[in-house]
Amino acid sequence: MTAQNGAGVFDEDCPSRLVLNHVASRWGTLIVSALRQGPLRFHALRDRIGGISEKMLSQTLRQLVEDGLVERTVEPTTPPRVSYELTPLGGELAGHVQALLDWITLRADEIVAARSRHRPG
Amino acid sequence: MTAQNGAGVFDEDCPSRLVLNHVASRWGTLIVSALRQGPLRFHALRDRIGGISEKMLSQTLRQLVEDGLVERTVEPTTPPRVSYELTPLGGELAGHVQALLDWITLRADEIVAARSRHRPG
Repeated sequence: MTAQNGAGVFDEDCPSRLVLNHVASRWGTLIVSALRQGPLRFHALRDRIGGISEKMLSQTLRQLVEDGLVERTVEPTTPPRVSYELTPLGGELAGHVQALLDWITLRADEIVAARSRHRPG
Repeated sequence: MTAQNGAGVFDEDCPSRLVLNHVASRWGTLIVSALRQGPLRFHALRDRIGGISEKMLSQTLRQLVEDGLVERTVEPTTPPRVSYELTPLGGELAGHVQALLDWITLRADEIVAARSRHRPG
């Protein structure tokens, strides 16, 4: 790890790289973004995020909970209700993730047009 | 795609999801960040990004070139020198990616500490 800004993530043995692996993934970013509006239950998250499998959702949620970015709450009902929400740390992350997603949404048409120029037909 | 901010990325058939898949990946973010300082040749990029295989590097670079985020330049030397640099669009993206990487670097210790609490030993 060097003192250069963000340099640790370039080192595969640096703790920040582990965090990057969880956060800089399509599912990690989408889960964090989906939780920005407030707590959601597992199935609501699954329905919100098109194309995610229950396996990928539970695996990514487990990592985010272990990283202290998401909190899992079990209500003592029958059956128990499990919900997920961002921790304050996760909320900070969500701001940066959302800026990235908003940029992608804004520029998607331009990027898709570039793609068709490179891969005609 | 709905009018909600960033909503398209939640839809697996929306073009912005395709862009997300390329950009929100550990290798995509690291390549874009590494190129912020200026053009780099393939082997310099490989050396900069710990743990990346040549296969993953060339595959991710190809996607970023096709997305119009990175430009590939071949100098007519013998042997030809190939270098990669951010396009103006890629430069915009790099700003958001760097904010995310800087946050991860800043908070990595805190996140790793959360991890040890969840997974003692």
